[in-house]
Order: sequence, then C-alpha cells, then structure tokens
Amino acid sequence: MADLIKLNTNEFPYGPSPRALDAMRAAADDTLRLYPDPTALALRTALAERVGLTAENVFVGNGSDEVLAHAFQAFFNHGDPLLFSDVTYSFYKVYCGLYDLPYRLVPLTENMAVQVEDFTAPCSGVVIANPNAPTGTAVGLDAIKRLLAMHPDRVVLVDEAYVDFGAESVVSLVKDHSNLLVVQTFSKSRALAGARVGFAYAQPELIEGLVRVKDSFNSYPLDRIAQAGATAAVQDEAWFRQGIEKVISSRTMLSAGLTGLGFEVLPSQANFVYARHADRDAAQLAASLRERAIIVRHLRGERTSSWLRITVGTDPQCNMLLSALRDILHRNS
Amino acid sequence: MADLIKLNTNEFPYGPSPRALDAMRAAADDTLRLYPDPTALALRTALAERVGLTAENVFVGNGSDEVLAHAFQAFFNHGDPLLFSDVTYSFYKVYCGLYDLPYRLVPLTENMAVQVEDFTAPCSGVVIANPNAPTGTAVGLDAIKRLLAMHPDRVVLVDEAYVDFGAESVVSLVKDHSNLLVVQTFSKSRALAGARVGFAYAQPELIEGLVRVKDSFNSYPLDRIAQAGATAAVQDEAWFRQGIEKVISSRTMLSAGLTGLGFEVLPSQANFVYARHADRDAAQLAASLRERAIIVRHLRGERTSSWLRITVGTDPQCNMLLSALRDILHRNS
Repeated sequence: MADLIKLNTNEFPYGPSPRALDAMRAAADDTLRLYPDPTALALRTALAERVGLTAENVFVGNGSDEVLAHAFQAFFNHGDPLLFSDVTYSFYKVYCGLYDLPYRLVPLTENMAVQVEDFTAPCSGVVIANPNAPTGTAVGLDAIKRLLAMHPDRVVLVDEAYVDFGAESVVSLVKDHSNLLVVQTFSKSRALAGARVGFAYAQPELIEGLVRVKDSFNSYPLDRIAQAGATAAVQDEAWFRQGIEKVISSRTMLSAGLTGLGFEVLPSQANFVYARHADRDAAQLAASLRERAIIVRHLRGERTSSWLRITVGTDPQCNMLLSALRDILHRNS
Repeated sequence: MADLIKLNTNEFPYGPSPRALDAMRAAADDTLRLYPDPTALALRTALAERVGLTAENVFVGNGSDEVLAHAFQAFFNHGDPLLFSDVTYSFYKVYCGLYDLPYRLVPLTENMAVQVEDFTAPCSGVVIANPNAPTGTAVGLDAIKRLLAMHPDRVVLVDEAYVDFGAESVVSLVKDHSNLLVVQTFSKSRALAGARVGFAYAQPELIEGLVRVKDSFNSYPLDRIAQAGATAAVQDEAWFRQGIEKVISSRTMLSAGLTGLGFEVLPSQANFVYARHADRDAAQLAASLRERAIIVRHLRGERTSSWLRITVGTDPQCNMLLSALRDILHRNS
C-alpha cells in the first residue's frame, strides 16, 4: 500500500497547513469530554471573513457530501425534476434516490462542457458542479448569473468542490442572489479530506433552511478537533496559495505530457485532468496502470468509458504516471 | 464561562483516556490529506471484539444521533406508528418529523418507569432508551426479550447511550435476535462527546440496512482522528472501569444528598439523576441554581415540569450543587 500511487480520489498531494495540524493536536485535550459548539461559530466566522460575508451566510457540515445531502432534502422537494448534467458528480443521483426526488439529466455538449442554456426546463432546482467532475472544465460567472435569472424561484446549487484550482467562484454573487447556494470543501484544496469538513455560502434564509434539516438530524456533525483544524486552515492563506500554485504547475506539466503521448486532454480547472487516448482502450490503460501500482479513475457509461480521470499528484508522481503510460503505449504498439 | 458548573448535558466529568488523546494527536499528521477509511474497520473490529461479536455486527456513525437518524430512515417506514415512551429522548419525535414517520407515545407508569407490556400495539418498530432519559431508570434483559418476542418482524431499537453506568446491556441478545438493534455512544462513558462517535450492534442484515442509508448520505462520516481516538478508547478498559466507578460513587453521594434535602430521586442507572422536590417549583429551583452559575436541565411538559435532570459531576461539583440547593431552600423557607 505504501508504494501505491493513488491518483483516483482527487486528494491534495501535499499535507495540510502546519497551523491546522498544530491546532488539531492542541484540541486533543480533556475538553473532548464536552460537546462541540453545535453552531461552529469560530469556523463559520473565519470562512465568512475570508470572502466578505458574515457567519449568517455560512453553513458547515461533515464534508460537502453531508452539506449536499441536507441541501437536497431542504430545497428540491417541489415535484418538478431537479436538473443536473448527465456527466457529473455521481452522488447527485444518489441523494435524489435517498429523498425520493425526481431528476432530469441535462446532456453535456459534444465537447463535454456544461451549457447553462440547456437548463431551461421547469424544475425543482439546478445543481451545477463547477468545475465539473469528472471533466474538470468550468463555466464563468456570467453563465451562472444567467442560470440564476432563469430560475429566480428555485435554488441554484453551485458545487465548487474544485473551484480553488483555477475557476472563478460565484461566492461574490451571494449578496445579490437569494436563490444561490455555493458549496465548497476542505477535502481538496485544503488537504483535509481526512478531517471531514464541508461548507456552504448563501443568504441567511437558505442557510436557515439547511440548519433546520441539520438540527433535526445531528446537532453536532463537526467535532472539536475538526472545527479547530479547519478554522486554522482557513486562516493560513499563504500555505493555501502556495499549495495551489504547485498543483496548477503540475497540472500544466501533466496535461502537456499526456498530450505528447497522444491523449486528448480537456482544459482542466480542477486538481485532476480528464483525458482519452486516440486509439487505446481506457479501461485497459487503467488496468495496465494498476499493475504498475498506479490507480486512476475509469468510469463505465456511454459518454465516459473512453476517458480516464487522473488526479494531479506531486511532480514525481505525475512523472511516474507519464513514464508508466509511455511504457504501456510502446510495449503494446 | 470557566466557572460555570454544567450539569445539564450529561457529559462525563473527567477527560478521556490518555491513550485516546495520544492516538488523536498522532493522527493529526499529513495523512489527513487522504480520505478516512469509509468502513472504519479498525474501530468496528475493536468494538466487536470487546463484546464477542465480529465487525459485521457493528455500525459506526457521527455520534449516536446520526446512527439513530439512519436507523429511523432505514427501518421504521411501514405505515404503522413507531412506539416509544411519552417521556424519553426528545429526538425520537424529531427523527419521525424529519422522515415523515407516524408514531404513538406509550406512557411511562405512574412511577415514571418503562413497562414493556404497554408496547403491544401493531407498530413499525419500537424504540426504548435504556436506561431511559431523562428518568435514569432501566429495565432488565428479560423485559427486552419479551419485547423482541412481541414484535418478531419489527426492529426493536434499544438506545443504550447511558448503559455503562450500571444497567445491563442487551448486546448479548444480538446473536439470537435478528430484530434487535443496540445503539451506544462514546459521548458519555467514554468522555468523547467532542469527538462525535456513536455505534450500533446488530446482526449483519440490519447493519447492512444502516450501511445502505449511510452510503447514500455521506460515505465518510467519521474522520481519521475520531476513528483513531475511539479505537484507542475502546482498548483502554482500565481507564473505562475506573471512570465509571467514580461516577457511580458520586451518583450515590448526590442521590443521598438530594434525598436529605427533601427531593424524591428516581433510582438512576445513568450518569444523571432525576429528582423533584416535595414542595418547591422545579423551574424556580433551576433558575436559582443558574444565578449561582450551576446549570441543570428542566423540561416543560405535564409529566416533566416538576422534575430536574441533574448530570453527575465530580464530587466537588456535586457538593457545590448540594450546597447551593441547601442555601436556596433555606433562604426561601
């Protein structure tokens, strides 16, 4: 396991902020006998201040998956179908199943891009992953504005799990749009997947809708140590900027390397790339990489089976992947 | 806040196992960039071994509240009402509201005791807190056996949040009863309320039912540090025994002291006592204690408004409470 190169779950390739680790170690003390702050006020305040909002604009939960699940239960139960892309985060369908919500898949364009003009149908709401996963491509602020205007009485949920790697966040639109819910996470750009912290920005009315579900489900989803670590992580802007720059630089190198090996690579604004080879079977490539202890993500399905989703690792990891692919491609050519 | 004596949320009065704290500090490292084990296998194995079961018999979640919520969604959606006591843990009603489940309240006896013979109605399931909260009294193994036999096709959920303080756990019945779900927590007897870990024992079929809901909601509810700390806590049996003995000894002292001050005190097998004064208003007593920086729990409601629920603190805390009550009772007599 120690030698396995795990490029399949889009984790950050470097450890979290040392200030976050220090805060977590300090929080591992006798006060753990006490319940955590159910409102996670310190963390929400830190998250709000970073983007010029207030704590009333922030909801936090046990990973963005929990935040998404609460949002689906709170906002999308109107009878009409929920709209989301045919190729996007696989859990949107799962939440619809869990809460018995109808949904309609909106196909990506032929270039595997989200086109907001395709989201016009009457709906209970819209969910857009931006950047989208597994494709890695993003739409701009204007596109989301058009979407918000198209459905003024419906919640538009923008899942920004990967936004910090180069896309434009729509959090600046929260002040003027009461139907916008922006969901982010500490699991990717903050290198804290193991601490389980996700969050959302919106106007207070939507935040209160999430709090009502949360308070009926589990008053204390974020433990004391996770709250302490996440708060310290938000405050370490220097670490954050530096880590992201490194990943973006590795992504550029990885994309160029893959292109040089005959892959088509979508323009990624995430910490992964989506790539397909001109004439090699994606499933076979993934299996051959697995034999070399490198794991990438291959998804079955009509529109996805020719593609590989590859997490951007460290430069040495990216180079090992490229070298393994070079070997596989040459050996079988 | 530092001087406040908090006897209202039934937290453990002493810090957690030093081995748990060490494990948590050690887990605050660079591996936090990676997702935790979604199955929490090490923790489930430790919990299973302690009671002679296997990991397939164990489910873990973000506090017993999350485990309960998943159980309500997974098992009690049959149309018939769910049965639970009229005076019991307040969240059972909340979960029914969240998942749109009908319920019927079964009154405690005049002595505020659970009588399983009163749970005979056709139902979607039965939930029993044992010991019950806020009363602190418990029923025995035979009573639960009768309940399991009464409803062989329904899940009987025994919420043992407080069981370690002197009541008899029904976990030994899991092997022979496919309809039994036993829920416990690290928040009380393990002094880890701030780490958010709850768990359940049952036969594999029920555990799988919980896993299905959990995997549709949030694959990773327990972070790496909580898993490490809880696993170490389960393995520190000496700490566990010692702490519980101290609380039981303080409870005996507190109960005797309250009785001496004119309170009726129910026989508690929990880390709190339920007490009412012969001729003093409970809400006023709680308010007077609050003025002295001591917080106890007073619940409105026909059957509960004359009672106070008081967490068993350290001996010095119990003595401060008794001394404050003595002062309040004498001053106004």
